[in-house]
Amino acid sequence: MSRESFPLFLGVDGGGTRCRARLADATGRMLGEGVSGPANARRGAGAAIAACVEAARAALASAGLDDGALGRVHAGLGLAGVCQRAGREAALAEPHPFASRALTTDFAIACLGAHNGGDGGVVIVGTGSVAYARKAEREIRVGGWGFEASDDGGGAPLGREALRHALRAADGLEPFGPLARDTLEAVGGDPEAAVAWVTAAGPAEFGMLAPNVVAHADADPAAAALLDEAATRVSALVARLADWGAERVALAGGLAGVYAPRLSPRAQAVVVTPVGDPLDGAVALALRSARP
Amino acid sequence: MSRESFPLFLGVDGGGTRCRARLADATGRMLGEGVSGPANARRGAGAAIAACVEAARAALASAGLDDGALGRVHAGLGLAGVCQRAGREAALAEPHPFASRALTTDFAIACLGAHNGGDGGVVIVGTGSVAYARKAEREIRVGGWGFEASDDGGGAPLGREALRHALRAADGLEPFGPLARDTLEAVGGDPEAAVAWVTAAGPAEFGMLAPNVVAHADADPAAAALLDEAATRVSALVARLADWGAERVALAGGLAGVYAPRLSPRAQAVVVTPVGDPLDGAVALALRSARP
Repeated sequence: MSRESFPLFLGVDGGGTRCRARLADATGRMLGEGVSGPANARRGAGAAIAACVEAARAALASAGLDDGALGRVHAGLGLAGVCQRAGREAALAEPHPFASRALTTDFAIACLGAHNGGDGGVVIVGTGSVAYARKAEREIRVGGWGFEASDDGGGAPLGREALRHALRAADGLEPFGPLARDTLEAVGGDPEAAVAWVTAAGPAEFGMLAPNVVAHADADPAAAALLDEAATRVSALVARLADWGAERVALAGGLAGVYAPRLSPRAQAVVVTPVGDPLDGAVALALRSARP
Repeated sequence: MSRESFPLFLGVDGGGTRCRARLADATGRMLGEGVSGPANARRGAGAAIAACVEAARAALASAGLDDGALGRVHAGLGLAGVCQRAGREAALAEPHPFASRALTTDFAIACLGAHNGGDGGVVIVGTGSVAYARKAEREIRVGGWGFEASDDGGGAPLGREALRHALRAADGLEPFGPLARDTLEAVGGDPEAAVAWVTAAGPAEFGMLAPNVVAHADADPAAAALLDEAATRVSALVARLADWGAERVALAGGLAGVYAPRLSPRAQAVVVTPVGDPLDGAVALALRSARP
């Protein structure tokens, strides 16, 4: 097969902040990578697929290939928002320039990547959180229903708890320690400023308050308590996947390392280190789906 | 003094949903009442003062007086949002048609009303919550920094906790009982519908989930646990006012009766029944402020 005709396999990890793509050959060898803007199917399927194509072009370019190669690309897309029925259907209805494309969720590719394409579960703790497992063609999804009333253990809910503590501490309801001090400082210095800050804040902004909790966990009992509570929630997510039948569960996302040493014994017993990242999972999806 | 020249005293309770006014004579005898739209100074001082004037006209009309009497009215205004510096300054800068007007917060008039104009504290638990006390010309305000990260014991945070429980229950993380069932039903029937519901929901909508918690407190341990936790927070607010020096603290707002029997012994020891309502407090403010 000449270089101009062999099939290409592209994994795409499309999230709310950016879209990453990794290009591979039929053996899974990496040829190039690319990145583009947000690709959350719930905020617009057209824009999400366009972001995937833009990331694909960038990955092709980094591999020394031009856009003409798009027609040889078998894509595996893992997109935020396609767990929602409407988002999934809209994304599937969008035209695309690929030879083929398989579509699943961002957490499903994280799971595929974590277990080298095999069965298992994943608990992703980033700004939000979600738990997911697959086993013998069945799958389960737990949590991840958003910042306001779900996303246990996510950085945004953790940051909100830090602010809640800081406001109580400022009012003399709880001890005013380093966590309260730094958190209050981050939102403008006093409760009145915090009210204005909250009005303009979304999950990303609340998530930026979470590192304070981690930083003060050793010195401030309030921070340690918040982390322990969040770790208990994360342990419950891991245990739920194990109860369902997952034999190994990987922790992924920016806060994975924070919770790992704080998990319950039950959770510790099934937690494993991810073998690969979500892009590895998306490439595996592309390879698997393109196979006749 | 003829009927056409004696001074009038008007109390106004301006909140985020409506503005109520009560007209009285110099002895505090009620002459009439009126109501108008929202009067939250943070959402626009001009509109808030206009709502006060509209409620004043309605109160005059119900007392058989026309707008010409506005110039004889000494008004005591208790407005939501004037605890914020900017809201207070903007409200004071607004022109008004009254003979005089005193301005304070909605919770300060609730406190005046609860203690017949005397010293004491109040913990208001409605959709939001706030604690306030006054003693010997000093005052303290605790909590009430908004739905997202404060308002302990308020109906909106309580409703959000109910939804959080319902979503966990739907995922098999907690027992699925009557509270989870009714709450999930109220937000569309399943977690995916809940995500859409939350996107469009504000404190008022979350607050509408709170009555489910109260209704199931006897039959569903999850509901009882949420109420107990909220009551512990309300008890902490009462205790904080008592520690500061308040000798009696009244519970007010729609959830007052729910928490009253669940308070800690420390809180029970200082809690009293309100003598009057916020409009009584606003009239007392008008009478006090107009006195030479």
